Amino acid sequence: MSRSESNEQHPTIAWAGDRIEIIDQTLLPEELSIIELSTVDTVVDAIYRLAVRGAPAIGVCGALGIVVGLDERRPRDISAARQCLDDLVDVIGSARPTAVNLRWAVERVRGAAIVGSTPDEVRALALSEALAIIAQDEDSCRRIGEAGRAELAGITKIMTHCNAGRLATAGWGTALGVIYAKAAAGERVHVMVSETRPLLQGSRLTAWELQDAGIDVTLMSDGSDASAMAAGRVEAVIVGADRIASNGDTANKVGTLSHAVNARYAGIPFYVAAPLSTFDISLVSGDEIEIELRPESELTTCLGRSVAPHGTSAWTPAFDVTPAGLITAIITEVGVLRPPFTTSIRQAFE
Amino acid sequence: MSRSESNEQHPTIAWAGDRIEIIDQTLLPEELSIIELSTVDTVVDAIYRLAVRGAPAIGVCGALGIVVGLDERRPRDISAARQCLDDLVDVIGSARPTAVNLRWAVERVRGAAIVGSTPDEVRALALSEALAIIAQDEDSCRRIGEAGRAELAGITKIMTHCNAGRLATAGWGTALGVIYAKAAAGERVHVMVSETRPLLQGSRLTAWELQDAGIDVTLMSDGSDASAMAAGRVEAVIVGADRIASNGDTANKVGTLSHAVNARYAGIPFYVAAPLSTFDISLVSGDEIEIELRPESELTTCLGRSVAPHGTSAWTPAFDVTPAGLITAIITEVGVLRPPFTTSIRQAFE
Repeated sequence: MSRSESNEQHPTIAWAGDRIEIIDQTLLPEELSIIELSTVDTVVDAIYRLAVRGAPAIGVCGALGIVVGLDERRPRDISAARQCLDDLVDVIGSARPTAVNLRWAVERVRGAAIVGSTPDEVRALALSEALAIIAQDEDSCRRIGEAGRAELAGITKIMTHCNAGRLATAGWGTALGVIYAKAAAGERVHVMVSETRPLLQGSRLTAWELQDAGIDVTLMSDGSDASAMAAGRVEAVIVGADRIASNGDTANKVGTLSHAVNARYAGIPFYVAAPLSTFDISLVSGDEIEIELRPESELTTCLGRSVAPHGTSAWTPAFDVTPAGLITAIITEVGVLRPPFTTSIRQAFE
Repeated sequence: MSRSESNEQHPTIAWAGDRIEIIDQTLLPEELSIIELSTVDTVVDAIYRLAVRGAPAIGVCGALGIVVGLDERRPRDISAARQCLDDLVDVIGSARPTAVNLRWAVERVRGAAIVGSTPDEVRALALSEALAIIAQDEDSCRRIGEAGRAELAGITKIMTHCNAGRLATAGWGTALGVIYAKAAAGERVHVMVSETRPLLQGSRLTAWELQDAGIDVTLMSDGSDASAMAAGRVEAVIVGADRIASNGDTANKVGTLSHAVNARYAGIPFYVAAPLSTFDISLVSGDEIEIELRPESELTTCLGRSVAPHGTSAWTPAFDVTPAGLITAIITEVGVLRPPFTTSIRQAFE
């Protein structure tokens, strides 16, 4: 089911009593279409095909997906309900492999709901926990924004990659939360956004939501990062994250590492903004992060039209891993973490 | 005028007695269409809209364009013919600003033709010089290929950017000439090509011509350079050039600098392959190279379809400048130039 809307603001993801409503981000910016997810299959499909994307947002979608799954499968007794929870964690939690928030959120909902003593209680506890995750994500975004605003005081020319904004979270975003916080405080800010091939989340999503918020934004090609920095167009880079290891190594949208290397070369600070739910402290380093490979057609086509000869093979990692040594600081809801990250991350989790 | 052809091989640019024939590269790889250029306006338009592109190829096109212009304008006496030459050098030579080969080629044709004593003689001398430029470019490509093959001995995994191949020259290419020379010698070679947004010369042109030649090629997004290098998929980077200053600073397709910075970070050699006609030894450094800004719509659309919200502003330099310090060596038809480039380039021109 889908319906089109005008430009009025709609949350990226919302619970509508018996279904999830999301903006179908594959259609932006040409069409603002809200789709309803009322089965597990549609939830998994929406996450896989990136109708909803962004590590915190797919965590929220997965959490609500557990409730959708309980409603769909209607377990008849508490044993079936608990089995159902386990199944749903597996099915929804593996819709995409890299962002740890998804697995974190479904596990958290399972942990809260498994103690229920009837199927109804399990469902009520699951919903309550999913809504708590939403509220917490909103709050985290706001805190990240404020912490980033203090950290980036005096900086007006900021580059970002992909989308770590309102469309990627239940709040105003992580990396873009910092931008919104600066704008809300009346600070001047200009954003250079790299288009983020292959799926163009920079042009389609970040340019869209920043323009919608009245913030100055200039689109650039991914490869023009170095020359933008050399030309003095960038004072700091800030990106979101999909998974952060205990040493600070950060998986994020492919292209992030290239920007980080260029920022280091240009002497420009490189920030990651992410909630604690994006950290995977079970991992010693980024070497252990599984990197999702996307279908080759995502690169050999653009908006459905072929851009490469028939049969061209393509290498299509969705993410890359930026080593901690290239990261100036990680901005979280509990404050700005600084190198050595192994220490600062451990302290943040204590 | 245009006609479509099957897959049979056609030269990128050819003189057909009274007109230039070129492959319309804007239509590749979907359509192999040959267009005829028989007026100055169509020559300038073909260069500007990138129907013919690549520094050596637009030099050749400009050189032949002088003959087209003489045929079109039919100067009645030698004074008019000489005036006509001057006009044509201005009009054609400024179709695009960055590649120095264009200005070099039209000036060279003018210099050869201006000594004619009748309009017919001017035309004959112009054509003869333009054909000499073609022959020389073919020969340069072959020499660059062989010099590069020796330089890159033992290296099989090579990354390139944009298109510096058969479609960019009158021969088998500069950067890709090295690939072709390796393949012709029976060496194993695998090419990673970055798609090269916004106009996708990597996917549309390089993937096409390498596949056509039976060479293994894998497409990658521009931003995945760093992760391809980190994953051990690249042993050397080799690119063409649009203008090289006397100190070795090199203007090439936007994205090149980012690849060079990443190659340095990864400890991978970074080569430029170009004929001496691409050097502008009048320039002390790359700071003096004019960088063409392309229409913003080239980035806010992809294959004609909008990818960014209406009114999004975009920064669209066609080129960037890689400082000499990031370049391992410059492979030319007179040999491999090494740092310090100020010395090796001066010697190459002596």
